[in-house]
Amino acid sequence: MEFTYREILKWGDKREAEVEPLMKKLIKEKFGLTDSDFRGKYLPGTETVKLDKPPMLKPAQLVFLKSIVGSENFRTDDFTRAKFSYGKFYDELLDLRLNRIPDPPDAVVSPNSHDEIVKIIEFCSEEKIPVIPVGGQSSVTGALRAPGGGIALDLTKHLNRIVRLNTVNKTVTVEAGMFGPAFEEELNRHGYTCGHFPQSFEYSTVGGWIAAKGAGQASTGYGKIEDMVVALKVVTPAGVIETKEFPRTAQGWDIFRLFIGSEGTLGVITEATLHMHIYRPKNTSSAAFIFRSFEQAVETMRRMIQSEYGRPHLFRISDPDETDIAFRTSGFDNSIADRFLKMRGFMPGKRSMMFVTVEGEKDYTEFVLRKIKQTAGKSNSMFIGRSPVKKWLAQRYSSAYMRDPLMDIGIMADTLETAVTWENLLRVWSAAHAYVKARPKAFIMIHISHVYENGANLYFTFLTPMEKGNEKSDFAAFHRGLVDTILENGGSISHHHGVGRVLAPWMEGHLGKTSMAVLGAVKRHFDPNNIMNPGGTLGL
Amino acid sequence: MEFTYREILKWGDKREAEVEPLMKKLIKEKFGLTDSDFRGKYLPGTETVKLDKPPMLKPAQLVFLKSIVGSENFRTDDFTRAKFSYGKFYDELLDLRLNRIPDPPDAVVSPNSHDEIVKIIEFCSEEKIPVIPVGGQSSVTGALRAPGGGIALDLTKHLNRIVRLNTVNKTVTVEAGMFGPAFEEELNRHGYTCGHFPQSFEYSTVGGWIAAKGAGQASTGYGKIEDMVVALKVVTPAGVIETKEFPRTAQGWDIFRLFIGSEGTLGVITEATLHMHIYRPKNTSSAAFIFRSFEQAVETMRRMIQSEYGRPHLFRISDPDETDIAFRTSGFDNSIADRFLKMRGFMPGKRSMMFVTVEGEKDYTEFVLRKIKQTAGKSNSMFIGRSPVKKWLAQRYSSAYMRDPLMDIGIMADTLETAVTWENLLRVWSAAHAYVKARPKAFIMIHISHVYENGANLYFTFLTPMEKGNEKSDFAAFHRGLVDTILENGGSISHHHGVGRVLAPWMEGHLGKTSMAVLGAVKRHFDPNNIMNPGGTLGL
Repeated sequence: MEFTYREILKWGDKREAEVEPLMKKLIKEKFGLTDSDFRGKYLPGTETVKLDKPPMLKPAQLVFLKSIVGSENFRTDDFTRAKFSYGKFYDELLDLRLNRIPDPPDAVVSPNSHDEIVKIIEFCSEEKIPVIPVGGQSSVTGALRAPGGGIALDLTKHLNRIVRLNTVNKTVTVEAGMFGPAFEEELNRHGYTCGHFPQSFEYSTVGGWIAAKGAGQASTGYGKIEDMVVALKVVTPAGVIETKEFPRTAQGWDIFRLFIGSEGTLGVITEATLHMHIYRPKNTSSAAFIFRSFEQAVETMRRMIQSEYGRPHLFRISDPDETDIAFRTSGFDNSIADRFLKMRGFMPGKRSMMFVTVEGEKDYTEFVLRKIKQTAGKSNSMFIGRSPVKKWLAQRYSSAYMRDPLMDIGIMADTLETAVTWENLLRVWSAAHAYVKARPKAFIMIHISHVYENGANLYFTFLTPMEKGNEKSDFAAFHRGLVDTILENGGSISHHHGVGRVLAPWMEGHLGKTSMAVLGAVKRHFDPNNIMNPGGTLGL
Repeated sequence: MEFTYREILKWGDKREAEVEPLMKKLIKEKFGLTDSDFRGKYLPGTETVKLDKPPMLKPAQLVFLKSIVGSENFRTDDFTRAKFSYGKFYDELLDLRLNRIPDPPDAVVSPNSHDEIVKIIEFCSEEKIPVIPVGGQSSVTGALRAPGGGIALDLTKHLNRIVRLNTVNKTVTVEAGMFGPAFEEELNRHGYTCGHFPQSFEYSTVGGWIAAKGAGQASTGYGKIEDMVVALKVVTPAGVIETKEFPRTAQGWDIFRLFIGSEGTLGVITEATLHMHIYRPKNTSSAAFIFRSFEQAVETMRRMIQSEYGRPHLFRISDPDETDIAFRTSGFDNSIADRFLKMRGFMPGKRSMMFVTVEGEKDYTEFVLRKIKQTAGKSNSMFIGRSPVKKWLAQRYSSAYMRDPLMDIGIMADTLETAVTWENLLRVWSAAHAYVKARPKAFIMIHISHVYENGANLYFTFLTPMEKGNEKSDFAAFHRGLVDTILENGGSISHHHGVGRVLAPWMEGHLGKTSMAVLGAVKRHFDPNNIMNPGGTLGL
């Protein structure tokens, strides 16, 4: 059986996503395309995967590793090796469309247990074989490449169960390779929810959430993944770290925190204990508001989160461009309601939409939403019901499927994100906006989706026609300029995507040499032979 | 001018605290004492401080250090050297009462600025001179001792100002040596509160809160100090670490977190940026409840914190012994109200009191308190008004003053504390209780004062007559047994006092060798010449 590069590049399930009619209309307008541009596929990646690098493991290494996991869990075929070296970063997808696999691992190993991983890491450290822990492969930072070969350690095949559901402590212990939907479904059956819903939810694992330091849509209420983890079990070349579940301690710094955001560079997270939350979706209250400007929406959001009257779980603002896209692709644009909004001064190109949900006990969710509405009311905004939030939630994961058909018609489509304090937020927003707009036929939409007392994230989605024949370097230069713009204006390298190899070049400049040296020292302690996800991840 | 050991040992201001009449009555009863025992002072520590260790700094070192800070900020007199090597750990107080200063520093240096500290640390690292950063000296873990001499770095004299109050980000940047009351007062003037009120508040500094990983009375709402810090500036022998204020990031692990709980072993925290909160004490809602048993109070507290309807700020349960003491020393015991409680089955020796306050917007504090009352109502408890909470708050800091007059009459009085998950809480509580009760004439009272979704702290206060003539080793053995009991039953080494030198011997057994090795590696990176608070702090 043979498989194509396209099998690897497609997001999620095997269906071929199509650009929806209203979105298609918009794209045609924005970039001057015609229906004929939507026929055929640009750089389809339909060739059969064929690697020109044979596995470099020595026969004795191969035999030993196979003996640990069993031969059914040890794969060296081209397609599997290719597949496991890819995440979903735009440049990776370009490689696949160009039928290129520059950095495959030598083998894909699927251990049956924590104990097998201990043996594997011991052996690989002695033999200096690189190890790249792999979860759901939704990385957008080039974190899974294997530039020095070695083994991709697939945690999803066997380490995918809930170990213990502790209803007294309200915590759950889970193996790292469990995917989001299975984890959530089992928790729901017991009356709980994990509370962590990144856009990659369908195709990401608990271990990946932790290793990449992710955030989900309800993070304003439930926190980012680092707020959820209470204990970890990690296999490192320097031994196994197993921390105990305590609510808080004062016994030095918390060792387990070193692994949150470690991106596979220190060891393999095999098990995590997380807070869980009560599952009662019927209690969720929600509201959408429209503001006359982005600035006013941001100022109101800040007031809401800093008021100390409880906080939303989902909390988002779409900037004017994203708001317009949402209105146009949902058919709201030019509806009677839209004309009413315009009459009231909520103008396209200016107006910004805010979404709120509150979870918890019924009267709590009602109380907090009432307070949110009061604050919104004082800011000259308009409550526009709950249905925009519900519609957004219903398509929440599917917008990720859009990138493939867009790339099929030669559109570059990527996202970047940053964390920023309130005082710098508008500066980063307008600088990023101006940077993208300076490119002919480029389009950017920006939202805020994770909100804190002292700041928030900014999430950038940009679309622009590829420079045909020069896709990779055109993207690289454009991407580099956007990252520079964000950092120069006071943003961080990342709020929740992580650093990987893609953003690594900015680490030292951003953190400073003294801080980078600390990362290096910790790395050397855990991984003296530099086998854990080597080759530049995190700038190490 | 000459000063006595007693000047050092006394808590807080210079007045000589007296045991209050109702407390005196109780003590007499518990330990079979008479009024005459309250006359005179046992081990009064009234001799003049005299060190038998001359400063060991070389003349050139002395000259150079003096040239950095100015001679008015460089002290080598016996009293100052003695004073700065002491915290408030019971065994330290015993030493002082025995007119002993075993581990004084060679000099006390009070730098004028961050930049001077950079120079001092550079010099001391080259010359291998130990440096012990000192704040308010309320340590109860032997963290300020200078077994290898060196300099005590006094941060309180000059580094005691607010650097920036950022009302947009709702954060405040403050120098490490600022004391609690001055910090809070200035914040209040601008309409904010720091939200951090440890019992040591009057005599502790922001830098000390962070270095020791402290917690304040309102931590259930505002978080522990590690939940408040957003950025740090730290001088280490490996260079200055200055982290940026971001709400959250995904760019490796957070470097600044290494210094929270570092207890002076990695570097000198010179500046911190913290969340602040809106100051509106009139909005605070509060309630006290009485439960028929400690077990029932704990179960109800767990339900309250896990319900997801908002949370208290102050949240406490006094166990039956502590409840009885509170009733007896407040004169409530045998009042009409008390007789009513007994008639309703709230019996001494069983009943447990819970305190709650909620802070924030007015209707929020009312809403959450209403929910708390509903939950309490379902658990067979009784609401007993607000005044017990208010009375407790009024004497909040003064109970710390009681230790001195108790020691004056030969009573050993110390505290220990731990963090524990809900599932282990009652086990640790009853084991610690049984351990202390096994000693003749020993008394223990326990409370919970910091509450989390997955657990809480336990705080132990014990009183027992000293074994006269053998005070130190009697205490050491008794203390050791209590720590062992806590750890064997599932508690942590500390929730918020820290480790210091006193609890260091338990670190490796508790964390495991692999985790201790990480602490060591980080230590060696920042402090290759082992000058930062050397001699066993944190087990390093």
